[in-house]
Amino acid sequence: MAFKQKKYLDNQPLADAIQKYHEALTAAGIGGPLAGERILVGEALGRVTSEAVVAKISSPFYHSAAMDGIAVRFVDTLGAAETRPKRLRVPEDAKFIDTGDPMPEECDAVIMIEDVEKISETEIELLKPAVPWQHVRLVGEDLVATELIISENHVIRPVDMAAMIAGGHTTVMVRRRPVVSIIPTGTELVEPGSALKKGDIIDFNSAMLFAMAAECGARAVRKNIIRDEAVLLKNTIVAALPESDIVVINAGSSAGREDFTADAIAGLGEVFVHGVSIKPGKPVILGTVKNKPVIGIPGYPVSAAFTFAIFVKPLIHSLLGLAPHPPDTITARLSRQVASALGQEEFVRVKVGSVSGKMIATPVTRGAGAIMSLVRADGIIRVPAQIEGFGAGQEVTVELLRPARDIENTIVCIGSHDAALDVLANFLRKRRPDLSLSSAHVGSLGGLLALGRGEAHIAGTHLLDEETGEYNISYIRKHVSGRKTALVNLVYREQGLLVRKGNPKGIKGFGDLARKDVTFANRQPGAGTRLLTDMNLKKMRIDHGSVKGYDHEEHTHMAVAAAVLSGAADTGLAVLSAAQALGLDFVPVAKERYDLAIAQEFYDTPMLQALLGIIRKDKEFREQIISMGGYDVSEMGKVIDIL
Amino acid sequence: MAFKQKKYLDNQPLADAIQKYHEALTAAGIGGPLAGERILVGEALGRVTSEAVVAKISSPFYHSAAMDGIAVRFVDTLGAAETRPKRLRVPEDAKFIDTGDPMPEECDAVIMIEDVEKISETEIELLKPAVPWQHVRLVGEDLVATELIISENHVIRPVDMAAMIAGGHTTVMVRRRPVVSIIPTGTELVEPGSALKKGDIIDFNSAMLFAMAAECGARAVRKNIIRDEAVLLKNTIVAALPESDIVVINAGSSAGREDFTADAIAGLGEVFVHGVSIKPGKPVILGTVKNKPVIGIPGYPVSAAFTFAIFVKPLIHSLLGLAPHPPDTITARLSRQVASALGQEEFVRVKVGSVSGKMIATPVTRGAGAIMSLVRADGIIRVPAQIEGFGAGQEVTVELLRPARDIENTIVCIGSHDAALDVLANFLRKRRPDLSLSSAHVGSLGGLLALGRGEAHIAGTHLLDEETGEYNISYIRKHVSGRKTALVNLVYREQGLLVRKGNPKGIKGFGDLARKDVTFANRQPGAGTRLLTDMNLKKMRIDHGSVKGYDHEEHTHMAVAAAVLSGAADTGLAVLSAAQALGLDFVPVAKERYDLAIAQEFYDTPMLQALLGIIRKDKEFREQIISMGGYDVSEMGKVIDIL
Repeated sequence: MAFKQKKYLDNQPLADAIQKYHEALTAAGIGGPLAGERILVGEALGRVTSEAVVAKISSPFYHSAAMDGIAVRFVDTLGAAETRPKRLRVPEDAKFIDTGDPMPEECDAVIMIEDVEKISETEIELLKPAVPWQHVRLVGEDLVATELIISENHVIRPVDMAAMIAGGHTTVMVRRRPVVSIIPTGTELVEPGSALKKGDIIDFNSAMLFAMAAECGARAVRKNIIRDEAVLLKNTIVAALPESDIVVINAGSSAGREDFTADAIAGLGEVFVHGVSIKPGKPVILGTVKNKPVIGIPGYPVSAAFTFAIFVKPLIHSLLGLAPHPPDTITARLSRQVASALGQEEFVRVKVGSVSGKMIATPVTRGAGAIMSLVRADGIIRVPAQIEGFGAGQEVTVELLRPARDIENTIVCIGSHDAALDVLANFLRKRRPDLSLSSAHVGSLGGLLALGRGEAHIAGTHLLDEETGEYNISYIRKHVSGRKTALVNLVYREQGLLVRKGNPKGIKGFGDLARKDVTFANRQPGAGTRLLTDMNLKKMRIDHGSVKGYDHEEHTHMAVAAAVLSGAADTGLAVLSAAQALGLDFVPVAKERYDLAIAQEFYDTPMLQALLGIIRKDKEFREQIISMGGYDVSEMGKVIDIL
Repeated sequence: MAFKQKKYLDNQPLADAIQKYHEALTAAGIGGPLAGERILVGEALGRVTSEAVVAKISSPFYHSAAMDGIAVRFVDTLGAAETRPKRLRVPEDAKFIDTGDPMPEECDAVIMIEDVEKISETEIELLKPAVPWQHVRLVGEDLVATELIISENHVIRPVDMAAMIAGGHTTVMVRRRPVVSIIPTGTELVEPGSALKKGDIIDFNSAMLFAMAAECGARAVRKNIIRDEAVLLKNTIVAALPESDIVVINAGSSAGREDFTADAIAGLGEVFVHGVSIKPGKPVILGTVKNKPVIGIPGYPVSAAFTFAIFVKPLIHSLLGLAPHPPDTITARLSRQVASALGQEEFVRVKVGSVSGKMIATPVTRGAGAIMSLVRADGIIRVPAQIEGFGAGQEVTVELLRPARDIENTIVCIGSHDAALDVLANFLRKRRPDLSLSSAHVGSLGGLLALGRGEAHIAGTHLLDEETGEYNISYIRKHVSGRKTALVNLVYREQGLLVRKGNPKGIKGFGDLARKDVTFANRQPGAGTRLLTDMNLKKMRIDHGSVKGYDHEEHTHMAVAAAVLSGAADTGLAVLSAAQALGLDFVPVAKERYDLAIAQEFYDTPMLQALLGIIRKDKEFREQIISMGGYDVSEMGKVIDIL
């Protein structure tokens, strides 16, 4: 027999799950707006009104001068004309008044100081009559007592605060912040900052969920980490309930041997949904205990972020009396195909670039464990359950994770990865907070193809032509034919074989890759480093088949270094900075040129010129690159060729 | 001689003023990003990084199982097939493992539990071989030590916090919050909540400026109100400087007798700009004292809000290392002309409605003292200095003050005002936080014309046809001819002459309006109430010329009530609720029907159906209307006619 999963996990469509839970909460009388609490207007920024605010007093609450000048009775000014000036006594009939001063009892008009001729200290002259109430701010001109200032369920802005105070309020009724208790569970979890041992998992989800709750207006309470023990979990839920409006348990939400969350909720209350056909985020649990929503959030960080956003955030908004906040969206063209399983709604993270006014979306890694994929993503596309994906070139709707204007101000770099690009990205942001450099690592050839298709502004490339001995030029001619391209050097860099400290296997060069006791970590086809490997193997007449691990492909230098450090491989070809980063030894085998291919049409844009300015003139940038080691910056920024 | 302004106010174009001040600050070395401070990652939401954050450790930092199953050496599984199962000993060659568990030292693959056949407690069987590293999360799969997590000048999001903790950080360097000291000046200013006397001005600007500063990431410090005394102001500035990054003085920024701010700044440091050719906001002062920006903000609340947004906010952003945040914009069609003086850049507040997919912008009052105009505005249009305005129908760019999607979800009601509409607006928001009702008060006829032009969803109207004795129908036939319209009753209401408490002038009806000792507050042409006045005067054969104040036009019932309360008028025609609101007496003269004309094309939209649902079925709404007095709700929601 096959081992069975201990518990059953549903596979409900997302809309059904939301509907079912909503109905369950509604039936239990949960989820509606919370009661109000009275707070100072001065502390109400961003809070939500729990009742309408109407003016208690008018503003202004007395007639006042709207100009600097003299206050008069308009009847006294009748008949004044250029040819027949009229004189008034000061202060009996004309009183000096400044903007904002209350009008004297009997006066009903203000004459601007510029229109008043002074005759003596006690007499002034007018050349034209006043009209009633001219330059007077009347009572209630801004706000009349009992007038609606802001309605219920309104998010308070600075200007609302001013209007409430003008209307005689010092306090305001706002919705209580919903309390969201976050319970981190897992015997393997340790607090951030703990001394780490193998098997530990730093609890970083809690901080994220805490901040997500705070961001949408809740008061988050983070409980201590608890071990995977059913009784402990139940006790912690029970203890959290009285002070909580929502309890979130992370994780133990799946159906493994140590996943107690569903049982705990079911034991204390009711589970309405366990398992939703979404990816990531399938093993979510939607339940209630004692009329409080209790939600089990999966442990993988990307699943945790998605399920919190899908199920918890709208609940918080509802408790605050707010409508759900749909994300901003744009339409973009997919740079490559996205396949997705039928019957499951998938949320695919994408990088979005704006190139020549077209928005291009490129899917990034889909692992639910890769928090960096979410840090780096610009948006999300949803692949509905009933389709198998989208084709390359298809127009899709992207839910944005950062503002569209930031995307417009981003230089899209696709191609080979080099650590110098990370440093460059940081310097661009440092010098020009309005600009970003976004790089996608698809290897040199992939970068040039993207440049040719108009999907990137620049491409990082280090492709050696075996025949000419020249870098990049012949590849650009071949693969970026339709588009004029400037080739600018970034760095020369050393490539070498990374080995563990002390070089335990005594690796000296490519020749050692054929050894039976040596496992190699390769790069993906199209990567310049892969080409360098293949060229050298060919030169030495070593067959791929005899290189153990040749099929083990990594996508960045750092990933190769990690494979060597971990023992997954004994060696791999990468740059010196990668070796240094992870404390590996480095056997130099080649010095190569790493260039940026820049589509000529963007070369003179302010964005690219800012980038080139840093590459060419920024001393601090140059010094940081040198300090990393393995780089020759003597031609940094030089135009190698225009193609 | 004419009185001269004591001080000279510049009239610099906005761009010049910004440029001049920027250069002055740059020359003084002010305005660049502040130094960083180290804070807990858990408290870093929304803060701005002051240096790049790179991973200190890899994540995961050990190989772990990506599935529940058994860990094996892949070589031990070679040769397994359906026809030739391979058996492994437990735990010697196959070890049970859960997702996330560290891989046993010698193992290099995980086989999913579903693919494992149990033979006995100590033996399992496989039907296919494993490939190396299958279902294993390798070291650094998410994050490799030294990899860039987030760059400098990055606003920290929840997911960034997770990634930083995963990368081994418990603290992060972020920009110190700039300290913005706000000094309210004005002998007439009193604290919110004070007992008020004539001449007092409640200091509500400080709360607004405080919140605006906080909203863009500063730490605001609000100083006590100081009197208009030059020495006091100087001392307060000097005292605030050491703890401040920016000092904001509100107000005394103009050139009147008690405007000391410019002199104070000039006396202590330097004034670079005093007076910018913008409206509102002209008398702004841009200076420095001891290498700190010191800015004088005008006293009118709308001017204060604009100048703070234009001059102080970008400075705060720059101190935080952030690019300025340009507002979101949309393109809209102007419903009416906007005239503006040449040589001055004007910021015109507009309401924006989305009707039949067209965005329509309607200018609202332009008084700099009207804070409610800013509360109610949906956006701002800028009229450049070199043009005299925009024509009706022209396409303009609107800088949004609320999200575009909120505007899409807003029912646009243009026409006559009734207090029941305010109550309805609040109930709509209460019941449906995703919807809003926005009403513009232009009188009944103006509303029907707007409806006819497709600029409104509904119009509030109470126009009596003298000939038929019927309300609204003939007017809709005439003025909304192109558009099918449903006429739905909202209320019947009493109109009456408002008089001060005790009716000091003994007013009994329209006949008294001809009295020499009675001043009337009229309504604007096109208002149903104006029509009612005119009809009654005609009936009584009273000539307009003999009604004192006939030309004094107010735009709402409440404004009429305020005019009577203040003594600006002795009486005016309005609804009972207006009298009650301001404690006036009410001499009933007519009962009239107040209807909503609804463009038929929108009648069945969910938005309008939600509104009609409240009108027809919401008991609490109905009760609140009744409780206001003067209303008959017996036909509330009834369809009077389809036209």
